[in-house]
Amino acid sequence: MASIFTMIIQGEIPCYQVAETADCIAFLDIRPLTKGHTLVVPKLEVDKLFDLPEAKYQAVMNLSHRVARALEVTMPCHRVGVAVLGFEVPHAHVHLVPLRNEAELNFANPKMQFSPEEMASIAQTIASALS
Amino acid sequence: MASIFTMIIQGEIPCYQVAETADCIAFLDIRPLTKGHTLVVPKLEVDKLFDLPEAKYQAVMNLSHRVARALEVTMPCHRVGVAVLGFEVPHAHVHLVPLRNEAELNFANPKMQFSPEEMASIAQTIASALS
Repeated sequence: MASIFTMIIQGEIPCYQVAETADCIAFLDIRPLTKGHTLVVPKLEVDKLFDLPEAKYQAVMNLSHRVARALEVTMPCHRVGVAVLGFEVPHAHVHLVPLRNEAELNFANPKMQFSPEEMASIAQTIASALS
Repeated sequence: MASIFTMIIQGEIPCYQVAETADCIAFLDIRPLTKGHTLVVPKLEVDKLFDLPEAKYQAVMNLSHRVARALEVTMPCHRVGVAVLGFEVPHAHVHLVPLRNEAELNFANPKMQFSPEEMASIAQTIASALS
């Protein structure tokens, strides 16, 4: 069965999209640690990020670079943190999390909630700042 | 004043080195979250990872890929986690952390301690598995 991220990529499940390239998609995490928390996901469905073929891995990291720079200028943060875990969804993904302090990058923290209108507005703000 | 990582790169402070390329160095974190916890650091001293010029950023992420694959086959783990924070040392660095579960990637956790001999042996084991 396709992963939930593949279903998002195929348009079967909606998302608050931030960017899309030939190899990847970026969209808001629906259970964000902080405002603007974004996932960058390869279209190729593999469990572990480091199992991606080199070119696909580079595509994910390059889109992560572009999205992180957009987050840094649009979201309330001192810097953008990165996390790769992968114990919940078996489809590789990079978390980009706007941070004001180190403690915010803790997946045991309670998640934030935004309305659909707020999520759409956040995604649009980030997308419009992409280089 | 040079960062502690620049002093390591210049050989003024010793480290348990795992790899070195023209643009980067990888060495064991001396306060590891798990056995094999490695830092990948650009030789160019910048505070934030995403402020690196594109080629230097790609060099860091490519060495991270190689080291992560070596960690996966040599250290006790189910996968290799990634974290970029940067609130403690103002010199960009990628944490690669061999993980058995999600809770291990929490910088508030107590750090592990290994003897100098054990650290040297861990670094050597990872280095010898680098492709």
